[in-house]
Amino acid sequence: MTEPMFNTVAIIGLGLIGSSVARGVKARGLANHIVGYDASPGVRRRADELALCNQVFGTPEEAVEGADLVLLAVPVGATADAVNAIAPHLAEAAILTEVGSVKAAVIRQVSDKLPPGAVFVPGHPIAGTEHSGPDAGFAELFEDRWCILTPCEHSTDAAVAKVTAFWQALGSQVEIMTPEHHDIVLAITSHIPHLIAYNIVGTAADLEEVTQSEVIKFSAGGFRDFTRIAASDPVMWRDVFLNNKEAVLEVLGRFSEDLAALQRMIRWEDGKSLQDLFTRTRAIRRGIIEAHQDTDQADFGRPHSHED
Amino acid sequence: MTEPMFNTVAIIGLGLIGSSVARGVKARGLANHIVGYDASPGVRRRADELALCNQVFGTPEEAVEGADLVLLAVPVGATADAVNAIAPHLAEAAILTEVGSVKAAVIRQVSDKLPPGAVFVPGHPIAGTEHSGPDAGFAELFEDRWCILTPCEHSTDAAVAKVTAFWQALGSQVEIMTPEHHDIVLAITSHIPHLIAYNIVGTAADLEEVTQSEVIKFSAGGFRDFTRIAASDPVMWRDVFLNNKEAVLEVLGRFSEDLAALQRMIRWEDGKSLQDLFTRTRAIRRGIIEAHQDTDQADFGRPHSHED
Repeated sequence: MTEPMFNTVAIIGLGLIGSSVARGVKARGLANHIVGYDASPGVRRRADELALCNQVFGTPEEAVEGADLVLLAVPVGATADAVNAIAPHLAEAAILTEVGSVKAAVIRQVSDKLPPGAVFVPGHPIAGTEHSGPDAGFAELFEDRWCILTPCEHSTDAAVAKVTAFWQALGSQVEIMTPEHHDIVLAITSHIPHLIAYNIVGTAADLEEVTQSEVIKFSAGGFRDFTRIAASDPVMWRDVFLNNKEAVLEVLGRFSEDLAALQRMIRWEDGKSLQDLFTRTRAIRRGIIEAHQDTDQADFGRPHSHED
Repeated sequence: MTEPMFNTVAIIGLGLIGSSVARGVKARGLANHIVGYDASPGVRRRADELALCNQVFGTPEEAVEGADLVLLAVPVGATADAVNAIAPHLAEAAILTEVGSVKAAVIRQVSDKLPPGAVFVPGHPIAGTEHSGPDAGFAELFEDRWCILTPCEHSTDAAVAKVTAFWQALGSQVEIMTPEHHDIVLAITSHIPHLIAYNIVGTAADLEEVTQSEVIKFSAGGFRDFTRIAASDPVMWRDVFLNNKEAVLEVLGRFSEDLAALQRMIRWEDGKSLQDLFTRTRAIRRGIIEAHQDTDQADFGRPHSHED
């Protein structure tokens, strides 16, 4: 048995991501102790019932006391409050890390609240599901996924190496980039996909000519996949768009411009350009399957649910 | 053993849908004979290897000879040519049906090519996968899905009842509506979802700031689900947009208008309106799961591929 990587890992926020990290740390023996906190008393109670941690504390201050790794897994908009609460209580040797979907804004919010000498490694595991809460997590969530670290002025090389090893131990590959680059990469690979999924579900709900019952019945034609994405946590996503405003607006501008071109191809019945685009997009799909970021299984034919 | 529903079912077009119907008819004993034709010699050869039909013919005329059910399963744009070829050869008692994703345009193209007295029941099974071709089909594709029939002037009540029973025997529920209503319902539940999926994959491919390798690596954040939809057959989808132009442009206008409103919420940091929309969209997801049109399984955590 190898030495655990950390003595005490404190996880602030025990939702999908936090609880998955807790399960992964436990399953792989990465720490002697796992402690946790969540702002919701109901989530704290559930975390106790699920035995996610050795101890769940009633305040974030108590949870981080003496921990050598502190992982924040809260909605981006709750980061500043959480750091305010814990900053004076961080152990001297503690590494603070987090998992926010936006990096530049989070770093701005965290940095000016940290005491001098505090060590902070901003990160973002590119993994998740459309479900939320402590019951939704699982230890394998990060396997074969990527985790992006975006070092800042509070990061040390040693701490970046340690957080890298932590995510690798959870099954992920790690990539280092600047916060600004992260924010534009995620705008196209995650934020805009969620935004347009939310948008089309809203458009469908508001159409007068088509009833909600029809939208539901005939959703297997493509729409249901958007509803899955649009079932993701509303608070988390509100915070993403408020905190990655510039990159999101930039990529959204591109998306709308391209959509207007596509609309024009349809209006003018330019079949060749339509077919060219629809053929070109297949190459990226092949790349994703080859990179093991998805399977080639025919998912529209997913197993049918027969439960009542 | 019950009497088969038809003596000979002829399937014109042996791709994903046609080959799934062939497999379903065989598995459930719905016909004494299944015969087929495909415009592609490679597909015809493959259909023979897979034993999809009792006989695969080299011309559509031969295939429909004597069949009492003729099912067209070709891209919408290939419908007119197929009907031109088979119309003079249809048996007197034959029912012609088809599976096109667009109904008003297909009915226009088919109707004026049919001899007087020919019986035609336009239909559309709301089922499919992102894969194409005869190998992609499977007998259970239509189970628990809906099939829409849109009777026209060439439809008789008896033929509509028979085609209804046929789809029910393949495991589907059947709904009857007008072609025009079908086309607007499908514009929102299928055509626009595909269009914006194709569009965002194109936008991502063209971004200068983000490499294709980054788009692929970090696709688990939502983008990969769009690439799956955008992997669907390019010719089929080109034809859908060319043939359902009006309904698609109408719904696309709504979508773009809603997206502009969402863009404005982000620019003005209207968190409340964002959160309200993101919460509202969850209700439709619940409806889809309750209607068994999707499972509640956390699909973003889908099984990871470990193959090389």
